[in-house]
Amino acid sequence: MRLTPCDFNRFTQSNLLKTNFGGAEANVAVLLSSLNIPSKFITKLPNNDISKSAIEFLRQHNVDTSEIVFGGDRLGLYFLEQGIGYRPSKVIYDRQYSSFSMSSFSDYDWEKIFKDVSWFHISGITLALNDNLFNICLEALKIAKSKNIKVSFDINYRKSLWSKEKAKETILKIIKYVDICIGNEEHLQMIFDTHDLDRDKHNELTHCGYLQLCKQIDAIHKFEKIFITMRRTVSSNHNKFSSMCYTENNHYFSRWYDITDILDRVGSGDSFSAGVIYSIISKYDIKDILEFASSACVLKHSVNGDICDIRKEEIEDLAFGQMNGRIER
Amino acid sequence: MRLTPCDFNRFTQSNLLKTNFGGAEANVAVLLSSLNIPSKFITKLPNNDISKSAIEFLRQHNVDTSEIVFGGDRLGLYFLEQGIGYRPSKVIYDRQYSSFSMSSFSDYDWEKIFKDVSWFHISGITLALNDNLFNICLEALKIAKSKNIKVSFDINYRKSLWSKEKAKETILKIIKYVDICIGNEEHLQMIFDTHDLDRDKHNELTHCGYLQLCKQIDAIHKFEKIFITMRRTVSSNHNKFSSMCYTENNHYFSRWYDITDILDRVGSGDSFSAGVIYSIISKYDIKDILEFASSACVLKHSVNGDICDIRKEEIEDLAFGQMNGRIER
Amino acid sequence: MRLTPCDFNRFTQSNLLKTNFGGAEANVAVLLSSLNIPSKFITKLPNNDISKSAIEFLRQHNVDTSEIVFGGDRLGLYFLEQGIGYRPSKVIYDRQYSSFSMSSFSDYDWEKIFKDVSWFHISGITLALNDNLFNICLEALKIAKSKNIKVSFDINYRKSLWSKEKAKETILKIIKYVDICIGNEEHLQMIFDTHDLDRDKHNELTHCGYLQLCKQIDAIHKFEKIFITMRRTVSSNHNKFSSMCYTENNHYFSRWYDITDILDRVGSGDSFSAGVIYSIISKYDIKDILEFASSACVLKHSVNGDICDIRKEEIEDLAFGQMNGRIER
Amino acid sequence: MRLTPCDFNRFTQSNLLKTNFGGAEANVAVLLSSLNIPSKFITKLPNNDISKSAIEFLRQHNVDTSEIVFGGDRLGLYFLEQGIGYRPSKVIYDRQYSSFSMSSFSDYDWEKIFKDVSWFHISGITLALNDNLFNICLEALKIAKSKNIKVSFDINYRKSLWSKEKAKETILKIIKYVDICIGNEEHLQMIFDTHDLDRDKHNELTHCGYLQLCKQIDAIHKFEKIFITMRRTVSSNHNKFSSMCYTENNHYFSRWYDITDILDRVGSGDSFSAGVIYSIISKYDIKDILEFASSACVLKHSVNGDICDIRKEEIEDLAFGQMNGRIER
Amino acid sequence: MRLTPCDFNRFTQSNLLKTNFGGAEANVAVLLSSLNIPSKFITKLPNNDISKSAIEFLRQHNVDTSEIVFGGDRLGLYFLEQGIGYRPSKVIYDRQYSSFSMSSFSDYDWEKIFKDVSWFHISGITLALNDNLFNICLEALKIAKSKNIKVSFDINYRKSLWSKEKAKETILKIIKYVDICIGNEEHLQMIFDTHDLDRDKHNELTHCGYLQLCKQIDAIHKFEKIFITMRRTVSSNHNKFSSMCYTENNHYFSRWYDITDILDRVGSGDSFSAGVIYSIISKYDIKDILEFASSACVLKHSVNGDICDIRKEEIEDLAFGQMNGRIER
Amino acid sequence: MRLTPCDFNRFTQSNLLKTNFGGAEANVAVLLSSLNIPSKFITKLPNNDISKSAIEFLRQHNVDTSEIVFGGDRLGLYFLEQGIGYRPSKVIYDRQYSSFSMSSFSDYDWEKIFKDVSWFHISGITLALNDNLFNICLEALKIAKSKNIKVSFDINYRKSLWSKEKAKETILKIIKYVDICIGNEEHLQMIFDTHDLDRDKHNELTHCGYLQLCKQIDAIHKFEKIFITMRRTVSSNHNKFSSMCYTENNHYFSRWYDITDILDRVGSGDSFSAGVIYSIISKYDIKDILEFASSACVLKHSVNGDICDIRKEEIEDLAFGQMNGRIER
Repeated sequence: MRLTPCDFNRFTQSNLLKTNFGGAEANVAVLLSSLNIPSKFITKLPNNDISKSAIEFLRQHNVDTSEIVFGGDRLGLYFLEQGIGYRPSKVIYDRQYSSFSMSSFSDYDWEKIFKDVSWFHISGITLALNDNLFNICLEALKIAKSKNIKVSFDINYRKSLWSKEKAKETILKIIKYVDICIGNEEHLQMIFDTHDLDRDKHNELTHCGYLQLCKQIDAIHKFEKIFITMRRTVSSNHNKFSSMCYTENNHYFSRWYDITDILDRVGSGDSFSAGVIYSIISKYDIKDILEFASSACVLKHSVNGDICDIRKEEIEDLAFGQMNGRIER
Repeated sequence: MRLTPCDFNRFTQSNLLKTNFGGAEANVAVLLSSLNIPSKFITKLPNNDISKSAIEFLRQHNVDTSEIVFGGDRLGLYFLEQGIGYRPSKVIYDRQYSSFSMSSFSDYDWEKIFKDVSWFHISGITLALNDNLFNICLEALKIAKSKNIKVSFDINYRKSLWSKEKAKETILKIIKYVDICIGNEEHLQMIFDTHDLDRDKHNELTHCGYLQLCKQIDAIHKFEKIFITMRRTVSSNHNKFSSMCYTENNHYFSRWYDITDILDRVGSGDSFSAGVIYSIISKYDIKDILEFASSACVLKHSVNGDICDIRKEEIEDLAFGQMNGRIER
Repeated sequence: MRLTPCDFNRFTQSNLLKTNFGGAEANVAVLLSSLNIPSKFITKLPNNDISKSAIEFLRQHNVDTSEIVFGGDRLGLYFLEQGIGYRPSKVIYDRQYSSFSMSSFSDYDWEKIFKDVSWFHISGITLALNDNLFNICLEALKIAKSKNIKVSFDINYRKSLWSKEKAKETILKIIKYVDICIGNEEHLQMIFDTHDLDRDKHNELTHCGYLQLCKQIDAIHKFEKIFITMRRTVSSNHNKFSSMCYTENNHYFSRWYDITDILDRVGSGDSFSAGVIYSIISKYDIKDILEFASSACVLKHSVNGDICDIRKEEIEDLAFGQMNGRIER
Repeated sequence: MRLTPCDFNRFTQSNLLKTNFGGAEANVAVLLSSLNIPSKFITKLPNNDISKSAIEFLRQHNVDTSEIVFGGDRLGLYFLEQGIGYRPSKVIYDRQYSSFSMSSFSDYDWEKIFKDVSWFHISGITLALNDNLFNICLEALKIAKSKNIKVSFDINYRKSLWSKEKAKETILKIIKYVDICIGNEEHLQMIFDTHDLDRDKHNELTHCGYLQLCKQIDAIHKFEKIFITMRRTVSSNHNKFSSMCYTENNHYFSRWYDITDILDRVGSGDSFSAGVIYSIISKYDIKDILEFASSACVLKHSVNGDICDIRKEEIEDLAFGQMNGRIER
Repeated sequence: MRLTPCDFNRFTQSNLLKTNFGGAEANVAVLLSSLNIPSKFITKLPNNDISKSAIEFLRQHNVDTSEIVFGGDRLGLYFLEQGIGYRPSKVIYDRQYSSFSMSSFSDYDWEKIFKDVSWFHISGITLALNDNLFNICLEALKIAKSKNIKVSFDINYRKSLWSKEKAKETILKIIKYVDICIGNEEHLQMIFDTHDLDRDKHNELTHCGYLQLCKQIDAIHKFEKIFITMRRTVSSNHNKFSSMCYTENNHYFSRWYDITDILDRVGSGDSFSAGVIYSIISKYDIKDILEFASSACVLKHSVNGDICDIRKEEIEDLAFGQMNGRIER
Repeated sequence: MRLTPCDFNRFTQSNLLKTNFGGAEANVAVLLSSLNIPSKFITKLPNNDISKSAIEFLRQHNVDTSEIVFGGDRLGLYFLEQGIGYRPSKVIYDRQYSSFSMSSFSDYDWEKIFKDVSWFHISGITLALNDNLFNICLEALKIAKSKNIKVSFDINYRKSLWSKEKAKETILKIIKYVDICIGNEEHLQMIFDTHDLDRDKHNELTHCGYLQLCKQIDAIHKFEKIFITMRRTVSSNHNKFSSMCYTENNHYFSRWYDITDILDRVGSGDSFSAGVIYSIISKYDIKDILEFASSACVLKHSVNGDICDIRKEEIEDLAFGQMNGRIER
């Protein structure tokens, strides 16, 4: 559950918090469901009415909640202070000791969970929470792999959750089970220890530099596909966004978007992931995969909350058409 | 009545709707009243407390409501989802079967309505609702014409209300009763079937192209004045706006405005129309008519709701002065 | 107390007012307290629950309220309509006849007030309210000077409170007691009657012109330091900001900030003053004083209310680091 | 969709409407789902985002929405002004011309709808909307009967929807297909034309009178069970409630509840119906059926919206335990 | 303008104030207008947008605002903290120095004001504000009397505005111009110095005592009619109310109302006055005058704000029918 | 921090939570500070902006926060669903693993904490959290005792925090350090295992029974004073309240209050405790102690939030005067 002061108030100014439910993997599941890909969300929740609200929220968005396990003391929370102009957004995590973070491998019925499943998505945030969760994920990944389930992994590094060293060491342990790797340029460089990349005069990677980055990763582990998201932060409400996809034989850079009047940026990376999964499942070509996923990511910035409440037609209009803010009437 | 989710929520996210009253002709009447031009609004409303609210709203803004007729089942509604950034605004109309749309010519006492009236304004939206309303309007226009009342018509084409063919056929039937024709470039081209207009490399009409457009219209019907509004949509919250006026002997292009941080765009065209009517009645010259009307239109973007709650001094400051966002204190 | 319609509504559209407490000197005291400079606020308030709220607000922000005097009829109010885009903000003052504006010199125990005090800050708004307050201030300044207390004065000219002539005449009477003078370029020119300043083709002062301005002021009165704030208003939500500091032997121009998505501009000048006082007390050099004060001023634009609820680290990050709107998580 | 002014404002005072979804049969379905009785809701909705919200709402509450049909122009609305003290609540219906009310028998796939269904519930409001809907219901009832599906019918007479004569004539046509008949004393007397019932000095029916009422109905049609709800309205926020069940060989009167501080009374009758259906399916005895259903009805008065968001344990605590408003902590 | 913290918050808890317009005479004018008695409101307002809102509010409710005069500095305000249970409501007046309270007799064009006027109503609050206003009222009353305009006066004693002695002395100066005198039992006893009234064992006046009260007043001045309102305060949300009318030859006591769940009590006395004026103008008999006025007063308790937004049918239903809180649908 | 859904919504209905700060001992400290008894609050908080808000809240209410210690991961939370009518309030605690509950004895500088302190108050909730906190409390009590600091203890049993057996065993270990014991009748019976108390026909304790209860406790431990609060719950919004005080030589029963329209009951017991402490410090006699404390408790029910934002005069008016809900104006 996210708790957000209203009207761009600071934490210290607010006595009213908007709540919504989300989380990296949940956000991916919701958007996939809304794109008509049946999705299931796995977690452990305490047996109370806050959890009931979370489950009703997922069910409203057509996510299968039948494998959610009950027990433990609390639902993980985080507080979000929305930034504006020169003031950045701030997150206070309160997810330690949650039912999920203290759950054990045996809480989950993995055979049932993976029955008829063709894709398994996991976020680096989950690995970061504690060693226990890392081990659960690792075992789950092994099972998934043994069942030929496709695995996507979004690095999602958060410096307040773990150190760079810990992240690097941990993530390198799981990449062998991962088919699709998603991350931003900074985190990919950090995890894979890349070097000597080509940069322009503003010290930004050039296209050539991005390719070098992918090739150095490829030398460490041959992912089926690497996706890089590129974000330039002009201000809290103004970002620029593009992305890149790399495969052994091919690569593609999406168009750049100039995202002004950002309403809510949280979850935009998860929309990108969902867009990637959807369009791979739909057998789009590399260009369309990337434009669809980028469009989903960009449109998320215009939606309140963690999830991307956007229709497939809207993503397509922006990705492939010329939607630009006219009133539809 | 317009129903709008708060805080840029999507329809599917909202359980709270802001309401306000408006409608093309009502918006024009409210701004004219606030500019001290006595105005009267004609419609038919059901006899309930929602209508009472609508009437109190008009009365608050000094619009004469004495000729509003009561009966029928419902007040026309529309739902507006406000867009932001790359997400466009969306309108869901729910105005079918309204008391007004199902009213008949004989519901209204046209002699009383037109008594001491010097100007009659009508919007294309009204014609679009159904054939019945078209016929009422047509008869009303004939009476107005017979009484030497000046008639302004705003094309206001809405593709969700009627097809291009139907609009074209219908509008061409009434133009002979119209003195002042207002529309945007796209709708004017469509209705009057213009062709071979001069365009720049971005495929936008050049000044020369706009003149050609007006001249081709002039060849079909000699309006006293043609007003063209020009809007470039950068994003949901950022538009550029200019306008043009054409008369047989003269024409003028207003300055371009760069409208950022749009609060509410609905009704801005109606503010333009009211600005046109006010400044023609006030015998402004063509340049001042156009700058006044454009300023009214531009300022509307900074006001919540359908109506333009802006003072005459504020319109003049922007049109003719240098108002630019300093705090007035 | 400030009363502000919600959601950018106009006064005439609103039936809900957000309230917050502030005022030029109070805003300075709050930011200084939050920067760990013990601060005391002097005023006179009526003995009612609105005042109690004001005092609780100051106490919450660690301002010493023990010298506030009680009596009289009312707390000064002002109504703020927040502008957007081309529509400027509007202030309606309702501070006449307040307890403070009708207080007398003997209401305050100046010996106690100035005990252990090293700095005294005063705003031109206070002088503007009436002759009575001017005289209280004048006497207080004399006492402060006699005790070697450093005095800063922010011109803060408001045309709705007094005429230019009155302001000029009054302010010139007190400058001999002032060490640090703060003002914007327009007000400084007006008060000190400067002339023949160097300007660029847009008629803006050049760096050379600013220096001439300071030197002409210096010829009238030798302030310890002169601070000039420079603001260019692009729209209600978009300003550009820079500042300058002049001392007999030195001067410095801060970087220019491009402030978009302004949330609340009121009190930004007071944040600048507090930044100046803090960094002088902290013995920063001229460059750091100016960058710290400018950063405080710029960040204020992203905070609701009159006060600057910003941490020292945040001001430093923007002034000396590279904070630019990334989410901190 | 229900639209309700906030904070007990009158329609004419409100510019903010709370929305929620509901409707007699939908309310029954939601409570049954929450009691773990799989439920399906049948209607026709326009293909827009308002309908999408309605469907998400039902799905959130676990109601099967797979048989909902799309088409037509509008979703039925109603406006509710919540009364307080001596001021009664007011409803403005705006459900004419809705997709549902204009739907036809062939829009629905009855074989699929009734597959594996054991209970069919219908409300008198649906019959009241128009002859078309009555005929659809009549045919559906015949099919249900032919498949040995149990049928419950809640009279739910609304004087603004149809006349007493029309209601009587219509309802008598369908009772032969009904097993469980639910109604309040006033409507039952009206529909079944009962006479000479025993009354006390306040002119209220005595227990004996209620029995006479049921016996006279029984003489007209032998329902499996008749349920009578009894409500005494002290004020808008204070009602008294009891109920009675009659079968050929048995009858029972529930305890009287004194319902103060009513939050939202709409849908309480539907909660009674759901309670009846649940406890009959659960094979409760007549006493427990009635106390469970009454408790569900009474608790609904403490829940905002049309649906009864109450847990089974809470209904049982009130029905069979001693829950009385202590904080549960 | 009234400013009220939301949701029963105390002044010290609130940062959001609901605003509405009202005032003793304005409230009377609004209800009379809504009862189709053309009404005019006289005051002086500053020339700003807060006043514009006040005027739009009156115009919305059909009150003639054409004689309102502009000038001066401020609109009178008051802050209302709504009580609940054992905590009483609290008012902080901030109406000193208002444009109205500092206006002079010559600001108003009395010939124009009283043209075609048949009734003049005045409240004791206006007399209480200061001597200046008392003198304006006194002169206005003389003119009204000279024109045979009927005068009603509501004592409306407020202890925070003046002392008992001052009120008594002042009010006795104007009673000779008053035809209809309205007050509660406590204030009438105080102003007219009554004595030895018959009381029951709870020390409440008996019917006989009320008659003695009226007769003693009658001995001092022969009013056409005396109205006494009787209120028993059980708690902030629960009052009992009745009223009495006395004429030389007749008297009547209305029924007692038990008013629970009070939403907003302010202005209920003004609704009583408006009810009195309306029903005297409508030539009701003494019983109907009193029941109508009491009903208007009682219903006001269920309406937010100072004015009584209630329809004539609703007042009649409660006064003469059996409206008791059923939903009207 | 308490998180409460608005407008009596259930947890599952709400996407907006009101926040406020409180806690048993904090509530006592705030009311004592507002009664001019200097108070200090001891806890451990994480070093983030949520804690900063909590501290600002305490400082606003004049509570000394200088001994609050920083560290650990989280601030304890609880969610409150406000009941209404037959629906009881519900609390979901989320205070496990809070910085305070995981703090150690050595985190606190007890010499500094108890310097110049004359009274130490502790609540049973703190003991209930875990054994660690119990031990810290036990040690602190020993130090307090050794310094002749008076100790009050409020049993505050919460069944969701610990079992009866655990509570009994734990509390009996600390009573030797307690001078003033406060509890409700049910908890006192449970902890002290009382038996054979005199009861009336409704099974409620008689006055005689309460005396027996106190005497049996007295036989176990000779407290200086025992306070018993007595609450009868009619519904969520309607309670009855009284209290009793017992000393070796004396006892007193306060009047019964009928508390309707309860706004917020949480913290009312803490207001009673603060009232007890205040009036003992103020050397009130036993009757006045009890009436003052009861009045504080009763008035709390009319204030939103955990703390009792009530003035001393208001408590006295209800305790000793005749305040009953009249508007104070």
